[in-house]
Formats: sequence, C-alpha cells, structure tokens
Amino acid sequence: MAGLAQEVLDGDRRALAQAITLVESTRDDHRLEADALLDAVLPSTGNAVRVGISGAPGVGKSTFIEALGLEVVKRGHRLAVLAVDPSSRRSGGSILGDKTRMVDLAREVNVFIRPSPGGTQLGGVARHTREAMLVCEAAGFDVVFVETIGVGQSEVAVSDMVDLFLLLVPPGGGDELQGIKRGIMELADVVVVNKADGDLAAAAGRTAADYHNAVHLLRPKWRTWATEVLTCSALEQRGIGEIWDVIERFERKVKASSELTELRGDQAKSWLWAELQDGLIDQLRADPEVQRLLTDVEQDVIAGTITPSTAARAVLASFRAAD
Amino acid sequence: MAGLAQEVLDGDRRALAQAITLVESTRDDHRLEADALLDAVLPSTGNAVRVGISGAPGVGKSTFIEALGLEVVKRGHRLAVLAVDPSSRRSGGSILGDKTRMVDLAREVNVFIRPSPGGTQLGGVARHTREAMLVCEAAGFDVVFVETIGVGQSEVAVSDMVDLFLLLVPPGGGDELQGIKRGIMELADVVVVNKADGDLAAAAGRTAADYHNAVHLLRPKWRTWATEVLTCSALEQRGIGEIWDVIERFERKVKASSELTELRGDQAKSWLWAELQDGLIDQLRADPEVQRLLTDVEQDVIAGTITPSTAARAVLASFRAAD
Repeated sequence: MAGLAQEVLDGDRRALAQAITLVESTRDDHRLEADALLDAVLPSTGNAVRVGISGAPGVGKSTFIEALGLEVVKRGHRLAVLAVDPSSRRSGGSILGDKTRMVDLAREVNVFIRPSPGGTQLGGVARHTREAMLVCEAAGFDVVFVETIGVGQSEVAVSDMVDLFLLLVPPGGGDELQGIKRGIMELADVVVVNKADGDLAAAAGRTAADYHNAVHLLRPKWRTWATEVLTCSALEQRGIGEIWDVIERFERKVKASSELTELRGDQAKSWLWAELQDGLIDQLRADPEVQRLLTDVEQDVIAGTITPSTAARAVLASFRAAD
Repeated sequence: MAGLAQEVLDGDRRALAQAITLVESTRDDHRLEADALLDAVLPSTGNAVRVGISGAPGVGKSTFIEALGLEVVKRGHRLAVLAVDPSSRRSGGSILGDKTRMVDLAREVNVFIRPSPGGTQLGGVARHTREAMLVCEAAGFDVVFVETIGVGQSEVAVSDMVDLFLLLVPPGGGDELQGIKRGIMELADVVVVNKADGDLAAAAGRTAADYHNAVHLLRPKWRTWATEVLTCSALEQRGIGEIWDVIERFERKVKASSELTELRGDQAKSWLWAELQDGLIDQLRADPEVQRLLTDVEQDVIAGTITPSTAARAVLASFRAAD
C-alpha cells in the first residue's frame, strides 16, 4: 500500500483511479488495504474546497457543473468531480458523474471525473464517495464537487461530506415547490437559479427574489454566513465567475471563524458512527450462537407471528449473553 | 397495554391515535409498551391493501390522494393515510399527511389521516410509519395509503412497507427526466399521469405512452404483474375509479400467485435487520469499556489524525473483547 499511497501523493492518475477502485471494493482484504492507504494519505487530505451540488432533473446540472468546473480550472485549480446516487436501486447503475455528459470538462488535464459508486445502500455509496474525496485531495485536487440529484436523503448524505452545499433550481416553481423543498432549502448555503437566459431571464430574477425571501425565514446554519441566492446561465456561461467568487468568500469566512474546522470534525464523527453501525452488524452475523437464534426468529418474523421489534430484542439479548 | 390494544381492535379512534403516539415515542419505557401493544394486535394486522403514493412537488399529490381516497371510501372501505417525510431535517417538521391539505377526505368518518412522524433519520421515521400502519390495520382500516415525496431514499423505504407503489407524474417531462427517474420508475407498480385535463390532456396522453414504453424496458418486478400506466384528472375526478380498479386487480393477482406473501415476508425480514442495527448501536454506547475508548478515538477522528474506518475497527475489537 505504501507504493500506491506514494503514487497517489505524486499525483499519478492511474494510481488515483486504482486507489478509488480499492476504497470502493466491498471485499474484506481490500478493506484492510483501503484503510492502510487512507491512513497513509490522511495527513495530505483536507486541503480542498468541498462543494456539494444538487438539483432536480431538468435544471441543467451537467451544463452547470461543466461551466463552473471550467471556471475553476481557468483560475488555476485542480478539480475532482464525484457523485452520490443510490437511487437506481435495482440496476445498481448511476448516470451521475458521467464524463460523457461533461465532454469539455472531461478533456481538461486538471480535472478528474468519477461516476457514483454502485450500491443499494445510501450509507455504502456515501462512504465510498467521501473516501474517494480524501484520495483525490491527497492527489493534489484542491476543489472537489460532489454531485447528487433532487430531493431526498442523498442530499443529507452529501451535505455531511462537503463544506458548502449549492442548490441549483430552475426559474419559476411557485409557492408549493418552495414549501415542499424546505428540507433541502435548509441544507443550502448557496442557491443558484439557472437558465437566466432568453425568455426565462425575467422569471429567473423573480425566482431568485422569492428564494432570497424564503431562505431568510430559515434558521441560520452558520454564524458567519447567510445563504446567498444568485442567478446564472450555464448555457451562455454568464454569472458563473460570480458564483465561484461567492464560494471562495464562503470558504474564507467559515475558515476564519473556525466554523469549518467544527463542521469537518462533526462530519468525521458522524462517519465514525456510520462505520460502527456497519461493523456491528458484521459482528452479529458472525456469532454462531446468535446465528442459530436468528434463523428461528427470522422465520417467525417472516410468518408474521412476532413483530420485528420483539424479535430484535431477543436476538440482541442473546448476542450480549453469548460473548 | 391489553386495555389499549382492545380499544384499538374495537376501532376506538382516540385509542388509535394514542397507540400511534406510543409507537412513535423514542422513550425506552414507551418502546416496551409499544412492543407489547404491537404483539397483542399483530394477529389482527395484514388485512389491508397497502398502497405507497409518491410524486414530485407540483404534481398534484394532495388532490390526487383526496380524489382516490374518496373513491375508496365510496366503495365501502375504511382508509388510513400515513406519510414518510424525513426531508425537513433541521426543523423536524413535515407537511405530508397534513389534513388541512385534504379537507374533504379528513371530514369522512371512515378515514384516518396522520402526518409523517418527525425525526432526522429515515430509518426511524419509516419504522414509526410502518408500525402506525399495523395499528391502523388492527383498528379495522382495510386500505392504507403511505405518502412520500419525489426522488430519493424515502421512496425505497416506503416501497419496503407497501404492497403496491404508485408513482404520480405530471404531463410532459421529456427524456432527461425519464432517464434520471429510473431508480423510482423501477419501484413503480402503477404509474399515473395526473392533470389529464384542459390544455394538458393531449400532453398527458403522450406522456403515458412514453412511460408505457419506458417501463417495458425495465426488468419485471413481479411474475404476475407488469407495471400499468394510466392517466387521470384528480381535479376533475376523472379516471380515478379506473385507478382503484387496477389496484384491486393487482392485489388479486399477487395474492393468488403467493407473491404478496413472499413480499410481506421479505419486508418483515428487512425491518428485523433495521431493528437489529439500531439495537446494536445502543448496546455499544452502553458498554463502559468501549465508551472510554470511543471518547479517545472520537477525538482523534475529529482532529483528523485517524480515519473513521480505522477508528471503528479498534472500537469494534474492544467491544468484542470487553464482553
């Protein structure tokens, strides 16, 4: 692992891809190697601006990421684009982070694009993405975009791994939308109304004003940052530089106030608890005594003669007694 | 608990509300009482048609649920409307299942409407909703709607507790939407294109044809059921009866083929595992030896000197050794 870690630190792209494949693996021996790799590169991580980007289908997310990404590269940064998309449950596939959607960006030498890891559990998908983020940082990428789709728990998972959460919205929307989107709105540090071009320019301005009013009704997330609302046209590349300026200003403010350190500490802590949860289930499954009882109660639960809650209580009692 | 259980079985509405409040409680003593209650009513559960209803903001979900609900009641059923909405993370509130959105339905004597339980964890919110569903069934409700919003993990959680998953979509949408919605599309047993009225009637027909083509590209979810696509106007109450006919036909088919029994068994099994996961974390937290180590590694993880994965490995080793 020391060899691979060094190659990653040297910025070798093939090593980077290989290291990410390793952290995405679900094999036990790979997991040990992945942990060794991550521990080795850990001191060289944490130096990127971590930006989560979310937006419902149809809002022009790919075009936006490409435009903002090209701006970031133009300013001399190295950019990694990752994704969290556990929504395609049965196929295991994902279309997020697909390079074919961002052809110009994918062609840049200082850009690394990686699609969402597969998996049916949001926890697993998110874990692999945040570990991939650390590996990218170790490889010298100083800006990371983590892309995700629309409304839902994956937004919460992404907000748990980034510094700044950017919500991309379309012009229009109306009151109902704003009411329902409250959960996501509360995560947003920057709201961008896209498609501020052609016929929709006026509507985009009104939508921005509406969002501006809406976010100011919410409890502030930061002591030193109030959610900003901007408009842009990703298609016509207008307003993009201003968005990156805002992101840089955000990063400066939350760094100066030590809020960023607090946030990242809290995030690392919640990742620890997620790992503990997964590990405990593995221990439970490995206990032969418990395994026998489990087989029985599982049948009862499936037959509907006992509630899952009562069955779980019995299994857990046996797990403690068996040790 | 025997008294409350009996009152629920007798169909007492106040007892029903009280029982649901009990299963939604996070207090340990309440949990024991809730388990006793659930075990007592369990033989009287499982007799409802369980329908999950999902649709993005703006699709007219409240109007649709009200229209379909009134149809169900007209046909002599007793209907419970529940909701899963963990998206409003920081406020803990939820607007789903709100009676004020469904005034006519809320007025019906054979209808019980309950908003989404609060909570930041999807797992907890989903657990409370499925236990509320069991209590409603015990109280004699023979149709249960479980409402949820748009794209995301809550759809998966709801599909894990219902027989049939109904996806409500607006006219229009286009290719991008269909591609991205694949994860949710794969869960849908019935797709309903709403707003098939006025100017949108023709567009709704085309959208239905598009969805019909799209769902037939997916791997079938059932041996005896192919996803059906319908149109309706919830606003004008047209096409609503036909939707309920389809749901009844679905229920007959999957019952006859024993697929429903298999599904419900699988669901109960996955609930058991969710309970085990939560219980294990509680055990871990309660172990004094582990607690000391945890305090240390948590600090290291927060400081960024050790990866969450490596820290978790150390804690779990200590948990096993400490017993």
